[in-house]
Amino acid sequence: MNGEMKSVVKTKRAPGAELCSLEIPHPGPNDVLVKVKAASICGTDVHIYTWDGWAQSRITSLPQTLGHEFAGEVAEVGSLVTRIKPGDMISAETHIPCGACLQCLTGQMHICNDVKILGVDINGCFAEYAVVPEVVCWKNDPSVPFEYATVQEPLGNAVYATLEGGGINGHSVAVFGEGPTGLFSTGVARVSGASEIFVVGRNRFRLDIAKKMGADHTIFISEIDPVEYILEKTHGLGVDVVLEMSGAPAAIANAFKVVRKGGRFSAFGIPPHDVSIDYANGIIFKGVHLNGINGRKMFQTWFEVRNFLSSKRLDISPVVTHILPLENYKDGFDILTSPEAKCGKIVLKN
Amino acid sequence: MNGEMKSVVKTKRAPGAELCSLEIPHPGPNDVLVKVKAASICGTDVHIYTWDGWAQSRITSLPQTLGHEFAGEVAEVGSLVTRIKPGDMISAETHIPCGACLQCLTGQMHICNDVKILGVDINGCFAEYAVVPEVVCWKNDPSVPFEYATVQEPLGNAVYATLEGGGINGHSVAVFGEGPTGLFSTGVARVSGASEIFVVGRNRFRLDIAKKMGADHTIFISEIDPVEYILEKTHGLGVDVVLEMSGAPAAIANAFKVVRKGGRFSAFGIPPHDVSIDYANGIIFKGVHLNGINGRKMFQTWFEVRNFLSSKRLDISPVVTHILPLENYKDGFDILTSPEAKCGKIVLKN
Amino acid sequence: MNGEMKSVVKTKRAPGAELCSLEIPHPGPNDVLVKVKAASICGTDVHIYTWDGWAQSRITSLPQTLGHEFAGEVAEVGSLVTRIKPGDMISAETHIPCGACLQCLTGQMHICNDVKILGVDINGCFAEYAVVPEVVCWKNDPSVPFEYATVQEPLGNAVYATLEGGGINGHSVAVFGEGPTGLFSTGVARVSGASEIFVVGRNRFRLDIAKKMGADHTIFISEIDPVEYILEKTHGLGVDVVLEMSGAPAAIANAFKVVRKGGRFSAFGIPPHDVSIDYANGIIFKGVHLNGINGRKMFQTWFEVRNFLSSKRLDISPVVTHILPLENYKDGFDILTSPEAKCGKIVLKN
Amino acid sequence: MNGEMKSVVKTKRAPGAELCSLEIPHPGPNDVLVKVKAASICGTDVHIYTWDGWAQSRITSLPQTLGHEFAGEVAEVGSLVTRIKPGDMISAETHIPCGACLQCLTGQMHICNDVKILGVDINGCFAEYAVVPEVVCWKNDPSVPFEYATVQEPLGNAVYATLEGGGINGHSVAVFGEGPTGLFSTGVARVSGASEIFVVGRNRFRLDIAKKMGADHTIFISEIDPVEYILEKTHGLGVDVVLEMSGAPAAIANAFKVVRKGGRFSAFGIPPHDVSIDYANGIIFKGVHLNGINGRKMFQTWFEVRNFLSSKRLDISPVVTHILPLENYKDGFDILTSPEAKCGKIVLKN
Repeated sequence: MNGEMKSVVKTKRAPGAELCSLEIPHPGPNDVLVKVKAASICGTDVHIYTWDGWAQSRITSLPQTLGHEFAGEVAEVGSLVTRIKPGDMISAETHIPCGACLQCLTGQMHICNDVKILGVDINGCFAEYAVVPEVVCWKNDPSVPFEYATVQEPLGNAVYATLEGGGINGHSVAVFGEGPTGLFSTGVARVSGASEIFVVGRNRFRLDIAKKMGADHTIFISEIDPVEYILEKTHGLGVDVVLEMSGAPAAIANAFKVVRKGGRFSAFGIPPHDVSIDYANGIIFKGVHLNGINGRKMFQTWFEVRNFLSSKRLDISPVVTHILPLENYKDGFDILTSPEAKCGKIVLKN
Repeated sequence: MNGEMKSVVKTKRAPGAELCSLEIPHPGPNDVLVKVKAASICGTDVHIYTWDGWAQSRITSLPQTLGHEFAGEVAEVGSLVTRIKPGDMISAETHIPCGACLQCLTGQMHICNDVKILGVDINGCFAEYAVVPEVVCWKNDPSVPFEYATVQEPLGNAVYATLEGGGINGHSVAVFGEGPTGLFSTGVARVSGASEIFVVGRNRFRLDIAKKMGADHTIFISEIDPVEYILEKTHGLGVDVVLEMSGAPAAIANAFKVVRKGGRFSAFGIPPHDVSIDYANGIIFKGVHLNGINGRKMFQTWFEVRNFLSSKRLDISPVVTHILPLENYKDGFDILTSPEAKCGKIVLKN
Repeated sequence: MNGEMKSVVKTKRAPGAELCSLEIPHPGPNDVLVKVKAASICGTDVHIYTWDGWAQSRITSLPQTLGHEFAGEVAEVGSLVTRIKPGDMISAETHIPCGACLQCLTGQMHICNDVKILGVDINGCFAEYAVVPEVVCWKNDPSVPFEYATVQEPLGNAVYATLEGGGINGHSVAVFGEGPTGLFSTGVARVSGASEIFVVGRNRFRLDIAKKMGADHTIFISEIDPVEYILEKTHGLGVDVVLEMSGAPAAIANAFKVVRKGGRFSAFGIPPHDVSIDYANGIIFKGVHLNGINGRKMFQTWFEVRNFLSSKRLDISPVVTHILPLENYKDGFDILTSPEAKCGKIVLKN
Repeated sequence: MNGEMKSVVKTKRAPGAELCSLEIPHPGPNDVLVKVKAASICGTDVHIYTWDGWAQSRITSLPQTLGHEFAGEVAEVGSLVTRIKPGDMISAETHIPCGACLQCLTGQMHICNDVKILGVDINGCFAEYAVVPEVVCWKNDPSVPFEYATVQEPLGNAVYATLEGGGINGHSVAVFGEGPTGLFSTGVARVSGASEIFVVGRNRFRLDIAKKMGADHTIFISEIDPVEYILEKTHGLGVDVVLEMSGAPAAIANAFKVVRKGGRFSAFGIPPHDVSIDYANGIIFKGVHLNGINGRKMFQTWFEVRNFLSSKRLDISPVVTHILPLENYKDGFDILTSPEAKCGKIVLKN
């Protein structure tokens, strides 16, 4: 396919991004060209957009198109592509595995030792068209609207975090972090049979969304001590399951205080530096089962995500608060980076 | 406590049972005397009541009070009882473990090598009062009505069968058998995040209850071939999870045909004799994970059951179709053994 | 590479196979050409060689080269091959996955819904050279001799069967079947910490090998009742783990009698027809955990196999009883099909 | 039983302990009186003996008999004891569970919410006789010598730590800490099929024992950087399994550096204070599975320990370096607290 396309491009090693007109890329023999119908903004995109310390050290070659969450329709496939066909509705796993390392060969592609990331190591999807390797393509259920299909990637983080290491059925859950992944986790825990859900955060707008996603208790940390509150409500025992989705060192410390003896703990939120942990009382004496959560299982998690959405068991509409035209990407970043952040997930549509 | 009480007693090695007036029993040092508020009729009670071949060989000493499912209030405790107090609302695990065998010592009390069963090996609970050993007592949430608390034991079978070997989250499920345990399993699968639920049975009245419990498809086997139907709806793959709750040899055979490759299979329903199984195609080539389900995990399963009920996530009211006074127990057995069996669970109340 | 090569070929729909001279095949773009250094005879090869009922219905196109177990050195790779290089020492998984089905996409490639099998669906490896798809290639440790590296595929069956569903550490094990896979399982259980190993069979020669592989008890079924024997030695409890490697219906029935309550059961041996199972007492009341074992996990199992051999923890030399030149393949089949079958694994070397 | 007995008693809130003559205690109705044949010194005993900060805050009532690891013969049982009989050879789990909390009721007695510890909360076993509750008694195999049976409790820590979260079969292992539990873990990993074992420590005498227990590599941290060494030997990947048995903050930090992506991590050693952890790189990005290890599973772990010893698969004689008469307990503590600590486990015999 030939022609030009709109693309949101990081052109300079400085804050911001530009709307450019680029040639529609050609897929290599193992690649797929997708017409992007919807994309969504992730925290990683914000890091790159605002050009923080992490982005400065991580992003090596510019110009580069932003974005890694999307849903679209396949326009063209490379000569060796067999699993995907033009016309397929797809999204993509953004962790591109090498296929050759120990992890890739033993069912752990999502933590590939030599992973590349869409929109970070190669051009992303905030554009009218994008090229992705066949190996990461995931066929969507066409009945799921594009604005929901695009968030399957972060929703997958939530599904993986919520279910790793055991079911949630009849168990109590504390979610630390009210960002989109925390909100998705709340919904996943709800429809997976949680008996009681606590969501802890600092953003009232998002805590209200948490209620819509099924939280029984939302704890606004400026007013309520989450440890005291949760321990009181659980008769001093703590919760069966902790989902640490925030990465805030104080939240991590609190999370280890409220997980019950023998409980499980999903560590997803990434702190900005090493954290001090009460390893003896928080982990050992409690006999805690802790799992590091990175990416999504390929493709076990995607399979579960698709089923949750296709079956309409999980309604994520409260989290998708904004749908903007691609051209208005700056508005999206502005909303996300405003002090109040009165938003959930922001979708960019073509 | 002294006095007389009404009791439904098997007095003769013949069909039926009599309403007798017996002395209120005294608890031994490790026992609890419970004032029974509600009890419920299980298939095992029907075997004993109708005095079928199984009952004739299994029941050794008469007279014996029938029944093992109940909810009540503790009236008195033995001198060595510490965990339970008068006034506690309780139900009880009906598998009384020996406490000394390998299974009891390694966290598998529910399959104790020397188990005794309430209402089968010792006097049961179809009475105004019953004595149960402290070791099997389970404290109920007082907010759960007695007519629901009494069915926690069979509901526990359903929870154990549904969740053993992995969660149900985002997975498809086929339930074979539309008896109360099959109906409960349908509800448990529903609130645990099943994407699609098939229920297979021969009783239209109960299949209608299955719909209320969350079945997406009810398959009336007199009219529809369940294997064809399920394979068609699952694109030839089969379902992720099979719950075989019927014990019918034909259902077991069908169940192995519809479980998908790599799926899991809970075997709960007890067939009347050995069954012929397509072991190569149904188990080996499919790489099936099969778990025998007997009783309930002590007390992990009870904990989950209580939480499902306390949190009101699981509504079992469609299954509890009849609430009769204890004296009308004959009506209960008549309804259950009628050819049409237009009932779910039948509760007897004091 | 051009030239001729020796090859053991099924040329007619009748018993036997011929030594032919064929052109060395050319690898396709995703294939690898391997110089076969050693191959080994599996029961499947015997089915095809003797042309039994299974082979008559399963094998569709002739002529076809026999064999699927091998070790060799890569001579040439197709244009799109990236993971494997000329000079690599390799063996191969013989289940060639489609890469597109649910199972392939969720970490269960070994039970691919559209699997093809080397030496059954396409030309095999009883030849001087063989072509295999890159996706199934497994790099060997060059320090492992070819005659041992070739049996990694059946050794993988043993590793998978022995370890699926839990470790073997400090547990008692009964192995039914003294064929090569049963003998390998005995060794794997031994080096994985089994406390006591029973091996049940009908071939004295192989039961003697079982002793060398670490069996504590070998039970010759013509003289000893295995159920009585095992129950007596385990104080009536039965064993923690059963590995059913024989496929004999009588052995399967016995296996369900000796697995303990709460034990686990690996079903690997393929019976010739449906089997009658005491499903109530053998599975349900025992709360057995049963896993169907088909193939090997790709490549988790291969990783474990390689490590067992590389570390020299597992000595399989007692099982590899015969090493013959490829040309003498008829002798190999004769030994395997003789009534006494005084052999373990038979290796064919180039 | 009446009479006097020798007993090693903490009499003052100061360093040391005295050999006293006390009356032989009488078992309560649920207790067992055991004639102690051998006991062994644990790090906890050293804390109490040396009267460090932990001991000063933890030990509340004196005088108290020291010790919690033992093996002996039952002399007398309380009136309600049923599982244990005079003449039984026993050891005991030292975590005495309450039997009523959520953890006790759901198969997690070893992390009871209201646990009491033998020799810490009640009188211990460094005496000729000791009283223990029946609930913690474990019947020994009489063929195991007393000097080995007494160390089953710390050996159980090693078994639990080594096997929690998955088998060790064919996997590489790094053990941090060369104290007795680290040495036992080395042996357990060895007989459970480890492919390669690294042991990291600071005590050459004990690292030499580690070699005898099956270590492939012993890393003396004064001379070798363990992270560099292990990463080099594992081709930069790291090890499949980390057993952190030391509690040293520097070792914990190193342990998170050498566990491979997707590996598992057992946290057993207790650090003296909070530790700073590279939570992002050490846990999340690696997708690590971490389990807190406290005590031993009751009694799954004991069952495995007994089988390892009874079957003679595991030889712990290199670790049991000293067998002293009970009266010489001071020598034992002196050896353990000397700067060089040229010892493994020290046993006190009656």
